[in-house]
This record gives sequence, C-alpha cells and structure tokens, in this order.
Amino acid sequence: MDTHALIQPLVAKNNTKIVMYVADGLGGLPQQPGGKTELETAHTPHLDKLARDGVCGLSIPVAPGIAPGSGPGHLGLFGYDPVKYLIGRGALEATGIGFELGPNDVAVRANFCTIDAKGNITDRRAGRIASEESAPLAIRLRQVKIAGVEIFVEPVKEHRFVIVFRGPGLGGDVLDTDPQATGVPPLDPVASNAGSQKTAEIAKEFVRQAKELLKGETKANCCTLRGFAAKPSLPTYEEVYGLKAAAIAVYPMYKGLARLVGMDILGSAKTLDEQIEVLKANWAKYDFFFIHFKYTDSTGEDGNFDAKVKRTEEYDAAVPKILELKPDVFISTGDHSTPSMLASHSWHPVPTLLWAKHCRTDACQSFGESECLRGGLGQFEAKHLMTLALANAGRLGKFGA
Amino acid sequence: MDTHALIQPLVAKNNTKIVMYVADGLGGLPQQPGGKTELETAHTPHLDKLARDGVCGLSIPVAPGIAPGSGPGHLGLFGYDPVKYLIGRGALEATGIGFELGPNDVAVRANFCTIDAKGNITDRRAGRIASEESAPLAIRLRQVKIAGVEIFVEPVKEHRFVIVFRGPGLGGDVLDTDPQATGVPPLDPVASNAGSQKTAEIAKEFVRQAKELLKGETKANCCTLRGFAAKPSLPTYEEVYGLKAAAIAVYPMYKGLARLVGMDILGSAKTLDEQIEVLKANWAKYDFFFIHFKYTDSTGEDGNFDAKVKRTEEYDAAVPKILELKPDVFISTGDHSTPSMLASHSWHPVPTLLWAKHCRTDACQSFGESECLRGGLGQFEAKHLMTLALANAGRLGKFGA
Repeated sequence: MDTHALIQPLVAKNNTKIVMYVADGLGGLPQQPGGKTELETAHTPHLDKLARDGVCGLSIPVAPGIAPGSGPGHLGLFGYDPVKYLIGRGALEATGIGFELGPNDVAVRANFCTIDAKGNITDRRAGRIASEESAPLAIRLRQVKIAGVEIFVEPVKEHRFVIVFRGPGLGGDVLDTDPQATGVPPLDPVASNAGSQKTAEIAKEFVRQAKELLKGETKANCCTLRGFAAKPSLPTYEEVYGLKAAAIAVYPMYKGLARLVGMDILGSAKTLDEQIEVLKANWAKYDFFFIHFKYTDSTGEDGNFDAKVKRTEEYDAAVPKILELKPDVFISTGDHSTPSMLASHSWHPVPTLLWAKHCRTDACQSFGESECLRGGLGQFEAKHLMTLALANAGRLGKFGA
Repeated sequence: MDTHALIQPLVAKNNTKIVMYVADGLGGLPQQPGGKTELETAHTPHLDKLARDGVCGLSIPVAPGIAPGSGPGHLGLFGYDPVKYLIGRGALEATGIGFELGPNDVAVRANFCTIDAKGNITDRRAGRIASEESAPLAIRLRQVKIAGVEIFVEPVKEHRFVIVFRGPGLGGDVLDTDPQATGVPPLDPVASNAGSQKTAEIAKEFVRQAKELLKGETKANCCTLRGFAAKPSLPTYEEVYGLKAAAIAVYPMYKGLARLVGMDILGSAKTLDEQIEVLKANWAKYDFFFIHFKYTDSTGEDGNFDAKVKRTEEYDAAVPKILELKPDVFISTGDHSTPSMLASHSWHPVPTLLWAKHCRTDACQSFGESECLRGGLGQFEAKHLMTLALANAGRLGKFGA
C-alpha cells in the first residue's frame, strides 16, 4: 500500500502540534524467559501515565522478522515505506558524519587498504589502522584534483572514510571496487548504466591520484570504493503531510535522515535537557517535532541491560517537560528494538504509544512490551504511524465521499 | 510486499536447526458457541509448555476470509506468497499422487465421461464410475502413442485420472475441454498462446486415440481434459533462505509440495513414530525440517470432532521426541483450519507457536485458538513465518545500514 499516495490528497492544515519522541532501539528482551524487558524494568511513571491515557501498540519497522538499520528504521517512523525508499550506503555514511548531500552529489564509502609492489591487495582494511593515523591520510587525499568535479574527503573511523563527488551529470550506479579478496588488485570502478559512466571515470582517476599521494605509506597505500550513491530523492514532510517539520537530535546520522525528508535541523544540543530547550525555543515555529534520544540504542548495543534501563528512565524523565508545551499529539516509540541480550538491532516489534484527545484509549496500564501487546494500535507497520498522527491531529480529511 | 526479494540479500548461514511441525488443518471451532475447539479440548501438555515458553499467534494462510487448498496453504507456510506462486491444477493433481514432474512436463487432470453415437456427452463424470473399474481403463490409455512425446497416464479416483505429456517445447497454457454441459461434444483443446500450440495438438490426438481404445465401453468411452499446467517454477529453499531443507511426510501431496520448493524428501515413513525416526537419522544433514501430520485435517474433513481431538493429542505426544534433538527454532502450526463443525477447510486463522531462545515470550498459557489471540506474533500472514524462523535462528542480517 502506498500510504503517501493515499493520504496526500486528504491532508488539511490546522494549528496543531505533533511531537514524535523517539528512543532509538527502544524495544528489548528480558534477561530470563518470563522476566521483564529493559523498558518494563525501568521506572517510567510519565510514560506509564500516557499509556493509561493514550493508546498503545507494537510497531513493526519493516516486516515481521526483519531487523532494520537506522536508515530504514527512521524512514518507517517518518511514514516513508522503507522498502521503497532505499538510501544508498554511501549516502547514509555521508549523512551519518553530518555531510549535507546536495542534488549533484555522489557519495562513496571508501576503505584504506594495503597493496604490494605488484598492486595486489595485502590487507583489505589496512590492518584496521587507528583513526588517528588514518584521518591525516584521508585529509591528504583532499589534494586530489579532477577537472569539472568538486571532491570532498572526510575521515570516518579506522580504515573507513567518505568521498563525495559533486558535479553535473554524475550518476550513482557504480559497482564496488573491493574484490573481497587479497592477492588481487582492486577492481576498476565500473558503471552499471550509461548515466554513471562519468562517475566511474572520475572514481578511477581518484584512485590513481590517491595511490600517488599515499606512495611509501606502510600502513595504508591504496583504497577501495563501495556503496556509490546519489542523494536519495524523497518527498518532503511539507509535500506529503503539509507539515512544517523540525528535528532535534544530537547525532549527525539522525539529523541527516531528518534532513533527507525535508525537516529543519534545530540547534546543536548535546544533552536531552538542551534538546528540550531547543524544542521550547522553536515551539511556535513548527507543526511537527522529531526528538531523537540515542542512548537506549547504544546501551543496548553494548549489551548493558542495567545501563539501558537507566537511559530509559532518563528518556522518561524528560516527558513532562515536553507535555508542558501541550502538544496535540504525542508519540513515544523507537525505530527498532535493540535488546541488550542480543547487543544488536533486532526484529522484535517496538513499543509505541500515542496520546491525543480522541485516540480511543485501551486497557494498557503501563508502557512496556507486554502491555503494548494488548494495546489499541495492535501490531502495525511503522509506515502507518504518521497517518495515525495526522488523523489524531485533525489534519486528515475523509477518504472518498 | 515481496518478502523473498527483501530477505534474500540478508540471509546468513550458521549451524542452527529449524523444525516446522505442521498439523494439517490444525485450527478448529467449538461444537457450541463459547465452547472449546478441538485443539483446546485436546490434552496437549507439550505444546502448552512451548506456548508458555515461546511466542504464539494466529496465522492467516492467504488473506482474511480465504480458505486455502493444500497447495497455497503449504506455500504460505514455506514463505512463498500463495497469490503470486500459483500451482496449476494439473501439476497439483500429479504432485498429489506422487508423480515427480520434470521441466519438460505438462500435467493434465482428465475426467472419464460417456458420449453417445453422435459424440455428444451424456455424463460428464461417467456416472462417477468406481475406482476399481476406472483404473484399468486409465492404464489401457497408456497404449496411446504420439511421435516426439512421452506420455504417462495415472489413475486417481473414480472418474479422475492424470495425464502427463513430456517433451521439448510443450507450453502449459491450453484451455479446458470440458464444455460443462451434456448434449454437446467435448471441446477441442485450444492453446491460449503460441508456445502451447504443440501441447494442444498432442492433447487432441490423445483424445482421438483414447476414444478408439475405449470404444464399446459402456461406463466410460471418452474423456475431457482440464487444468493443463507445466511444472511451476519456484525458487528453492537453498536459493531463497540458504537452507538445506528436508521434508518428512507420509502422503504424496505434501512430499510433492515440498519437492517443488527444493526440499529433499526423506524416508518412507508410514507413521508419526517412523517420521521421528527418519528425523533423528537425518538430523545432522539438514538445516530445516518440515514434518507433516495429516490426520488433524482428515478427521476434521470427516466432521469427527472427537477423532480430531485424539489425533491432536497424538501430534502433541511426538513433540518431546523432536525437542530431544534440541532444535534452535521449533514451530508448530497448520496450513489452514479444518473445523470438524464444517467438515472442510476454512478461512479461520491458524494457531501457531514459535519457540526459540530470543523469541520474546508472551502471556499465552496454553496452545489454542483463544490463547493465540493474545500472543506476541499477533495475527500475521503465513508468508512471514519463514522470515521469523530465520530471524530467530540468527540467520538474517540487518536490512539497510
């Protein structure tokens, strides 16, 4: 179902405010079968009250059994079908380090590697060279000059860096050059369609000059290129929902994802308290606010159950400060589950609550996985959440006569 | 949603074992409103314990309100969209009697009929001639010889038999020859595309020779042809899921369906105990096992509530023998419901349980329709079950970065 095509003609504007308060990786698992999850263990009086007054459910980010990355996880919450709207790996990597992609850009994930005298790869990841050693090498590669194209090189971490080629007529469909093996040379960049031919030629020249610039380096003297991707073309929040939307996030990845759907990125908060201050300062200017809280995911990824519980309590503690502003629709959810028992993103459905005046309350007594299972939203694909938000905000007209 | 396209790139291999233990027609109805279903009436301590330790739900085989046949019912469980992957009637009939279709085969369902001196049909089903009388006639039709094509004729039941034409360039798109009326002659076989022209000609010649061979027979002296179908082309379990898969079934239909998706057919068990022995003997050799139990369906079809209860208990009693082998993922489900109150396949969602280490247990206390309704799997389309199995087996990577 194309939800955008369905709702776009129904959108109406009014003065309501919608807050989507996202705890990254919110869903979890108990430490023992039959025990409580992180969210169920945490003391979350504010979310529990909203669960009683609002309507709960479990969000399926992409499809049953599918563990999403941050890209598809957030696109789903934003109401963009995550299977239809794929963000290329290069574009996501650039987004993740805060690089603002333009319409003429092709982003590439690059790996430093080592090659021998014959040009054959000896280590595909340059021995996972330390970031302090690789960053200056990446910066050195800014010296590469190719006529007709602007080139950006940004360090990421260890052997990884990002290249962005900017210029007219650059297609993003070029195959990876990592041969996935040692003892052979890197592959030449090959365009998979005519519109990406120029990109492939530029990439080839980039690698040639890079080898010159890295000549004599023992830890990293070449590079491979992967995940070529043009800026994904997504309709904006304004276009699809008629919403003037803003994102308040600490980490570049989530700012970048919000920017891709046309949200304004507000402030430069480093803490949740600062994020709330930014929210207050901008309350009058926007219809929709996406507030991103990272640490429920990072503690889950660390496999630290207790730390995730603590971070969940921190997330809960900020709720009253948001409610003081009297949003018409308040949503608490996650982009996916990150159970500390798995120390990774998982496929488990994500606890979700929606509070609004006419939301039709259910019997849920607290905010947690088990309670949400008997919630009024049922189990639903994340891409429907924005439709529910708009409906509860009185921003959707009737479908059909 | 094309689940195969979604998961194929995410598939990872490991050493886990998945068991899908299918009770055909598992779902049922109470004898009186408010009463217990067959499954709820049955004493099923082993499944009940798994329901407490695992996660339950209700599987919708095709779509709400749709009662599936065995073909789509099993394709759904196997993760193949049963609306996309249609198995032609001829192919299913051949499969059902254990005929192993090859890539150059076209299978046809044939009906004996009677015609008068003018060639007009007097009985479309040859008076539902007894199987003992029709079988020798079907076997006599093996004498039909047509240049360039190999022909197989197999008795089925009463007036029904199967013909398989084998040869190069045989398309499966030929219209039925049964005019659905008496007093008129059978239709000539007509190809609905150029690639099936040769098949139509061969079929016409088959009927001509058949009439010669049956001349003078009073009970059946002609035949009509229906459901022409080439072997369906399905991607295999290995291709889609990276699973080395095996089927342990007693009845040819289920072996045939499993063979169509590339499963190996193991043993020649005639009882559930023998099936378990086959499972044990082959445990090390496969990643995935489909074990089929027929009698919950056949007793339901007979309208025998008590017999279905007894057969359900038999199905439950074998569970510990499977669990002894320590599967990583254990699934109990059915391909559809067969309530004895209806004495037929029905549209009712099917009780399903999945047990795995990280399945996120729900509040279900026993295995039955009512309890499954509050299960953590919710109500889900059967085609998602294999994705959940792979995820719980740790065999699926993350979707997107």
